[in-house]
Amino acid sequence: MSTLKKIPDSRLGSLSPASPEYNAETDEYFFDHSPVLFNEILDLYRTGELHVPSNCCGAVLQRELEYWKIPKCLISECCIHSYHSYVQAQNTIQSIRESFEDNILDYSPTEYRNSKMKKMFRTIWITLDQPKSSTCAKVFNALYLALVLLSVLVFLLSYQPYCRNETMTHEKLVYMKNYSTISLFQSVNLNNAKQVMFLTTEIHPLLDNIDLFCIVFFTLELFAHFLTCPRKIKFFTYVLNVLDLYLVVAMWTTFAIETQIEKYLNDSGMINFYTVLKASLVLRLLRFFRLMKQFSALKILFMSLKASIKELLLLFITFLLASVFFASFVYFAEFNEQDVFPTIIESVWWAIITMTTVGYGDMYPTSSAGKLVGIACAASGILIIAMPIAVVAANFSEYYLKNSERRLRGRLMKSKKKK
Amino acid sequence: MSTLKKIPDSRLGSLSPASPEYNAETDEYFFDHSPVLFNEILDLYRTGELHVPSNCCGAVLQRELEYWKIPKCLISECCIHSYHSYVQAQNTIQSIRESFEDNILDYSPTEYRNSKMKKMFRTIWITLDQPKSSTCAKVFNALYLALVLLSVLVFLLSYQPYCRNETMTHEKLVYMKNYSTISLFQSVNLNNAKQVMFLTTEIHPLLDNIDLFCIVFFTLELFAHFLTCPRKIKFFTYVLNVLDLYLVVAMWTTFAIETQIEKYLNDSGMINFYTVLKASLVLRLLRFFRLMKQFSALKILFMSLKASIKELLLLFITFLLASVFFASFVYFAEFNEQDVFPTIIESVWWAIITMTTVGYGDMYPTSSAGKLVGIACAASGILIIAMPIAVVAANFSEYYLKNSERRLRGRLMKSKKKK
Amino acid sequence: MSTLKKIPDSRLGSLSPASPEYNAETDEYFFDHSPVLFNEILDLYRTGELHVPSNCCGAVLQRELEYWKIPKCLISECCIHSYHSYVQAQNTIQSIRESFEDNILDYSPTEYRNSKMKKMFRTIWITLDQPKSSTCAKVFNALYLALVLLSVLVFLLSYQPYCRNETMTHEKLVYMKNYSTISLFQSVNLNNAKQVMFLTTEIHPLLDNIDLFCIVFFTLELFAHFLTCPRKIKFFTYVLNVLDLYLVVAMWTTFAIETQIEKYLNDSGMINFYTVLKASLVLRLLRFFRLMKQFSALKILFMSLKASIKELLLLFITFLLASVFFASFVYFAEFNEQDVFPTIIESVWWAIITMTTVGYGDMYPTSSAGKLVGIACAASGILIIAMPIAVVAANFSEYYLKNSERRLRGRLMKSKKKK
Amino acid sequence: MSTLKKIPDSRLGSLSPASPEYNAETDEYFFDHSPVLFNEILDLYRTGELHVPSNCCGAVLQRELEYWKIPKCLISECCIHSYHSYVQAQNTIQSIRESFEDNILDYSPTEYRNSKMKKMFRTIWITLDQPKSSTCAKVFNALYLALVLLSVLVFLLSYQPYCRNETMTHEKLVYMKNYSTISLFQSVNLNNAKQVMFLTTEIHPLLDNIDLFCIVFFTLELFAHFLTCPRKIKFFTYVLNVLDLYLVVAMWTTFAIETQIEKYLNDSGMINFYTVLKASLVLRLLRFFRLMKQFSALKILFMSLKASIKELLLLFITFLLASVFFASFVYFAEFNEQDVFPTIIESVWWAIITMTTVGYGDMYPTSSAGKLVGIACAASGILIIAMPIAVVAANFSEYYLKNSERRLRGRLMKSKKKK
Ligand SMILES: [K+]
Ligand SMILES: [K+]
Repeated sequence: MSTLKKIPDSRLGSLSPASPEYNAETDEYFFDHSPVLFNEILDLYRTGELHVPSNCCGAVLQRELEYWKIPKCLISECCIHSYHSYVQAQNTIQSIRESFEDNILDYSPTEYRNSKMKKMFRTIWITLDQPKSSTCAKVFNALYLALVLLSVLVFLLSYQPYCRNETMTHEKLVYMKNYSTISLFQSVNLNNAKQVMFLTTEIHPLLDNIDLFCIVFFTLELFAHFLTCPRKIKFFTYVLNVLDLYLVVAMWTTFAIETQIEKYLNDSGMINFYTVLKASLVLRLLRFFRLMKQFSALKILFMSLKASIKELLLLFITFLLASVFFASFVYFAEFNEQDVFPTIIESVWWAIITMTTVGYGDMYPTSSAGKLVGIACAASGILIIAMPIAVVAANFSEYYLKNSERRLRGRLMKSKKKK
Repeated sequence: MSTLKKIPDSRLGSLSPASPEYNAETDEYFFDHSPVLFNEILDLYRTGELHVPSNCCGAVLQRELEYWKIPKCLISECCIHSYHSYVQAQNTIQSIRESFEDNILDYSPTEYRNSKMKKMFRTIWITLDQPKSSTCAKVFNALYLALVLLSVLVFLLSYQPYCRNETMTHEKLVYMKNYSTISLFQSVNLNNAKQVMFLTTEIHPLLDNIDLFCIVFFTLELFAHFLTCPRKIKFFTYVLNVLDLYLVVAMWTTFAIETQIEKYLNDSGMINFYTVLKASLVLRLLRFFRLMKQFSALKILFMSLKASIKELLLLFITFLLASVFFASFVYFAEFNEQDVFPTIIESVWWAIITMTTVGYGDMYPTSSAGKLVGIACAASGILIIAMPIAVVAANFSEYYLKNSERRLRGRLMKSKKKK
Repeated sequence: MSTLKKIPDSRLGSLSPASPEYNAETDEYFFDHSPVLFNEILDLYRTGELHVPSNCCGAVLQRELEYWKIPKCLISECCIHSYHSYVQAQNTIQSIRESFEDNILDYSPTEYRNSKMKKMFRTIWITLDQPKSSTCAKVFNALYLALVLLSVLVFLLSYQPYCRNETMTHEKLVYMKNYSTISLFQSVNLNNAKQVMFLTTEIHPLLDNIDLFCIVFFTLELFAHFLTCPRKIKFFTYVLNVLDLYLVVAMWTTFAIETQIEKYLNDSGMINFYTVLKASLVLRLLRFFRLMKQFSALKILFMSLKASIKELLLLFITFLLASVFFASFVYFAEFNEQDVFPTIIESVWWAIITMTTVGYGDMYPTSSAGKLVGIACAASGILIIAMPIAVVAANFSEYYLKNSERRLRGRLMKSKKKK
Repeated sequence: MSTLKKIPDSRLGSLSPASPEYNAETDEYFFDHSPVLFNEILDLYRTGELHVPSNCCGAVLQRELEYWKIPKCLISECCIHSYHSYVQAQNTIQSIRESFEDNILDYSPTEYRNSKMKKMFRTIWITLDQPKSSTCAKVFNALYLALVLLSVLVFLLSYQPYCRNETMTHEKLVYMKNYSTISLFQSVNLNNAKQVMFLTTEIHPLLDNIDLFCIVFFTLELFAHFLTCPRKIKFFTYVLNVLDLYLVVAMWTTFAIETQIEKYLNDSGMINFYTVLKASLVLRLLRFFRLMKQFSALKILFMSLKASIKELLLLFITFLLASVFFASFVYFAEFNEQDVFPTIIESVWWAIITMTTVGYGDMYPTSSAGKLVGIACAASGILIIAMPIAVVAANFSEYYLKNSERRLRGRLMKSKKKK
């Protein structure tokens, strides 16, 4: 009995004939409890160390420790492993569950039962927001994605020369550059085919009309989406909705500028603003992340990236340190070589392209010392990448597995209900 | 007893003196059943949670749960892991077994016992279709593969200039281009060595004869294969047989065209048709997949690719999204640089070549902004590839291991039979 | 009983009625000890082999073997696995603990209790040396890191042409090269923009002043750090402190030389010394490793690299052997091609760049034999890297996991104390 | 009892009152045997399936099955996993043990006890053959490796222009090419710096003398090694000894030719023979594999490569198939582009360099179709490599781990002996 007193706060440590477990008749203590881990707990009293067999589930360990009132920190260093992996797994399961079963905005039943309009609003809302809720929602979602694809295609094609109509001959442009007072024309680099293309051509009317149709569609969708949203304020806490709003505003603004482009030709601030706005329309690509609502693997990939943020940060910092290091070394090693590695900062580009093993070949060391630095750089790159990436890939596998398990459980539940 | 009533449909929950397990004499219930997991099942009644030790085989768990009539969905979230991996392993084992022991087309005994011809047919069929069935089949299969190799070699060599005979001097070709009315000659690009080679040379007669021999052999083989096949319709459900048919037809067609090539010289449609047909003959390489019947590792590789189709799709979609993204960014970042990144779509090629870390160096950013995009692109590529590839590689290892286990079991069975 | 005599030194082997475990009344031996592994130990006496279930913790195994006085080398070859991984894990845990809880230099209580100055010294010491000890220390540390960043930036920018002021026109330099007697000017390569830049420009005064401020700050910090250090001798056993000393000395030396640069222009030894010293200032980048005190992942990365030193050595030796091998082969294979692979040693560069899959494209084989060597080289590179890197990555994951477990234990302890 | 008859040959199945385990007094059967797995074996009789807990060691399973006379093929498909991994581990352990404890050639005690010369021979033999046997052997081995290093360095340096003395001016060579009748001079390509170097220079005498010294040393070593070898015939079954012999013969032959080089200048057969022989001397690099005797990790790397031969073959075949495939596709896709992809076989080089992600950039597709093929090629390469490499890397880790375990056991044994 004296050994039991070692941990006085525990259930066994505080046993006395007064405890409810005491059976006076037989002079024995009776615990209506699982014998699992009882041996290990007795050993804890004997030796002061709690070792847990690795096949014991972390939840059982936690339950038993709580029942016997033993603090968890007594688990010995070598056996905390299984409890740790249980805690990790629980976190993963928890975050997956939250992300997949998050409380989607919805009308409260009281709200829409009384008002007929609210009911209709709710139908629209559900159709727009939850792609899997009904056949109609599925069709709408397919249409939406098709239009996203179309709008991305239009965006890509509008930068292809063969999808543009000529508005000005090349001779005219040369003339404009030399004699016009418009700064835009004066500053054009006639050797830059891209600049020339934008000044001498305009998007093919067909593409332009398709684009306009898409803008109108997305504007209406955003409008309907916002109008029928039950909690207007929460609506803009979703990144994809903010993106939608930005895209709609940016699209109409560029459209407005384009119609009156002649006015602004001399206003370089306006031209720059227009260019940035136009370029930012590539963000329409992000609309594809609506796919995440259906394609869970993509969601899992993002969740595991989020969960690996620490490892990625480590990768980033080590990478940056190492690249500046190798860049400086190669700069000094190649100091007497002309034409390559003009400054340290430009050498950083070389170091990173070498460490990622891309190796474009636009810069490479030519002296012996520089080549030694290059070899060290490539080798370090492989090492530095391999280590955190292994953890990130393992995280992804873990998330992927847990999601697969979650779905198995879902199937088991469904098959029980059917019975 | 009251705790047992928590799950009323289960065997313990429905116990009563009327159940067959009740022994009236001793007033006890007796179960002639394994005590494995009984503790855990009692704990389920006590605590409402079913935790399973991780060393317990999934099949045992399933058996016990069925015996005690407990629904599988009661397995707690943290312990479903081992059941999930059991289900996965069973699926893998199942698909490997199906693929290796699939019911090969064969004559029914009644069919070939009576007819002598059918018997002979069957012998030919077995010899042609199952490379491991007899010594004769092995020899034939080796011959077949040797001829496939030969035919591939002839195909490769027929595009080497030193394996072709001159039929027309270069001067003649220049003359033809300038004065002939035949469109084929008019459209030739004299700087393109490949076009010139095809117009001024023909395949060396030796190679041509070997090719002809191979065609005849494969035609006969296909004919014999089809003629002796017990189920003619099922024959063409095998991809390799369809391929064989296509190749034989395509080979004879090209052969026919070649003999009368002068007729068609002015018919550009015919010439294009001939070129495509000729190029498609590279598919003869696929005949090597007959090796799969003997070289099981190749089959396992294909099966695991098939099993990883979801991860590969994920990889493909993420890759495409990311590459269009980086392509757009680099296009705008390098807008003021001439000569590189002429359009967004051409930049996609750069983005993919960078993300796969191939890095040809035909395109690379030169401005600071472009270089930042390049760094992000290379880094994302490594990340995006690493994650699904880890799952795919793990799938392959799993299939490879299970196949190895299957073979161990086969050996154990054989060694028992010998005893 | 005779089977027990097989291992005479063991507790069971030396049992006799005289042993303390003997209970004369019941004629039984009683061991107040855990029954865990008793079955396995009995089996050891029966069969002579000790097999341990893989879920048994290594510490328990060790405890039991010591209790039963059985030598550890009796663990059978197939079951040593779990004991080995226990030993490995213990080593990992041990080295992590040592590295994180290493006895930081500190004043002994008796030292600083009596003297007021010592007390103040200790406060400064703790503030400077332990970034997490107080708010003040945190602020100072943030300032320190900001200045490190600033000093690195100044270093990088001082090599950018647009951050330098002209001191001499290019024409003057050409004149100096042709007519001056100063060797430095005579040896300049006018085509090398880097050499020209250094001779015709000086760092922008603003950057120079910031640099001076940083030097003063780091000098003061080092001085205060050293002055308040309780054990002066041990101070320089820390690599970062030696680095600090070197940097401060080197910085002041370069500064001194720069102020009197005209004197030394003709002294090429001095110029070389100055250049090397100046280049070595890039080591200031290493000051970032102070981050390791806060950012434990970086420490873990370094520890796992240290623990993988054997695998890295293996990688290095195999890589070197293989690269010299392929370099020799490609040299002979390409002997008749001009311009590429001029010597074997230069071919080693090609071999390594190919084996790491960087592939700059500055050298590549052009003959058939050379291409075969190239293919073998690339394939070997992938293989040689993949194998040890897998072990290194696994080591990192292990260290990372154990550190994560250590922190979980820390949290559990804290949460107990709060109660 | 009837259930026990299901497997009649087993120990339980053949129980009868006549069996030795029967105890007539108590009417019970008594087995003096471990109860481990008894439950599972009873379940086998009950359900016909043998499921084994995954923590049970494969050796115990084997022992129990043999004791109960149950054929191993009854292990169920889902539980063969642990037995399979046990068999695999045993194979690995076995091959490591064989390779490390292989019976090194040695004199039998009877041989060398009587003869004094034999005793001396044996001392020399042990010193030469077993680097770890004595301090003298260690010193000799260090010397040997130093000379290997030296001889490799001499080999590498002898191809560096600055380590060679001029024997003929460039003008003389031009004159020789034009007017000499010696074919060697006539065929020289004056633009090929390598050919010119060999004809106009000779190795620096110092290097030549060092080389001669190394040759003498290695000749003596081989002679002593062979002379003192107890089994002359077995001596040449070791690859490294054959290599030594070849190198010594080849070195003396080249040396002999070099002294009379003028004689053979016109004999192109002799010149070719000399060149090949000279080039083959790079094999001296392989002498470094003597390091394997001390550096066990290198040995493990080779063993795991040998054990992964099947996976590497799979990799090789898939790679070859895929590369010919992509080469053909890119050839046709780029048919109308001039200058790139001249023949399919040359395109194979491109395909392999792309699939290994080396990407030199000497060839790359320029048309849209070609780029699509390029993307597919790079992606396939990553996939095809990732899968078998994962298995190979896992094999290496397994071998590495088992070797580490073997060494732990060795240490445990030693520490017991010390006691
Ligand atoms: K490259
Ligand atoms: K590359």
